[in-house]
Amino acid sequence: LGYLGVYYKRNPRNFLRSVSVLERDEFLNKLRQDYRHIILIYFSQDDTLNQKIDDFVNVAFFADISISQIVEIHMELIDEFSKQLQLEGRNEEILLDYRLTLIDLIAHLCEMYRRSIPRE
Amino acid sequence: LGYLGVYYKRNPRNFLRSVSVLERDEFLNKLRQDYRHIILIYFSQDDTLNQKIDDFVNVAFFADISISQIVEIHMELIDEFSKQLQLEGRNEEILLDYRLTLIDLIAHLCEMYRRSIPRE
Repeated sequence: LGYLGVYYKRNPRNFLRSVSVLERDEFLNKLRQDYRHIILIYFSQDDTLNQKIDDFVNVAFFADISISQIVEIHMELIDEFSKQLQLEGRNEEILLDYRLTLIDLIAHLCEMYRRSIPRE
Repeated sequence: LGYLGVYYKRNPRNFLRSVSVLERDEFLNKLRQDYRHIILIYFSQDDTLNQKIDDFVNVAFFADISISQIVEIHMELIDEFSKQLQLEGRNEEILLDYRLTLIDLIAHLCEMYRRSIPRE
């Protein structure tokens, strides 16, 4: 229980809704790339996976992006993979497994928010 | 953006870790039942679904239960369904769809935490 009540201070200037449109696009593109990378290594034995997930969650938290935006990034990527697999005539079932990646990421992010609420 | 920065005040006395073991068991059993009900109606046209999800998320938020506990409730229930389907010789593939229910719930809860952080 020792980790509860941690209050991560965020600077609203870094929130995604406060930055310019250009910065916003750049930020979201980077986030998409990072998410794609996490998806691609998620079921491998990559030692850097946990760090990559932590980094992603940190970036999302400090930019205060909404959870629906993260779900959207996931869905766009899965759509893209789905089209590719269809073109190659391959089974799309594997894409269902990537829901675990999304659950993992959102669970981490949610836990970070939970811990960031200041104590009374 | 109007809804951002809402600060939901929680009473730490109601946190799951503050209540007695009996109350805790009762609380978790109720939560398991509620989750099971949500899963069972998730892909139906039940009008009460959104309200049930909101209620579940509220209860989890005000009890400050960890996200891993929610994931655990999900996994226990899916395990139970899986055993039942195996006994009946039926395909378990449908269980993968319930990951969407978990994503939906955690996304809602995460969003509630995000909005509950007080503004500077």
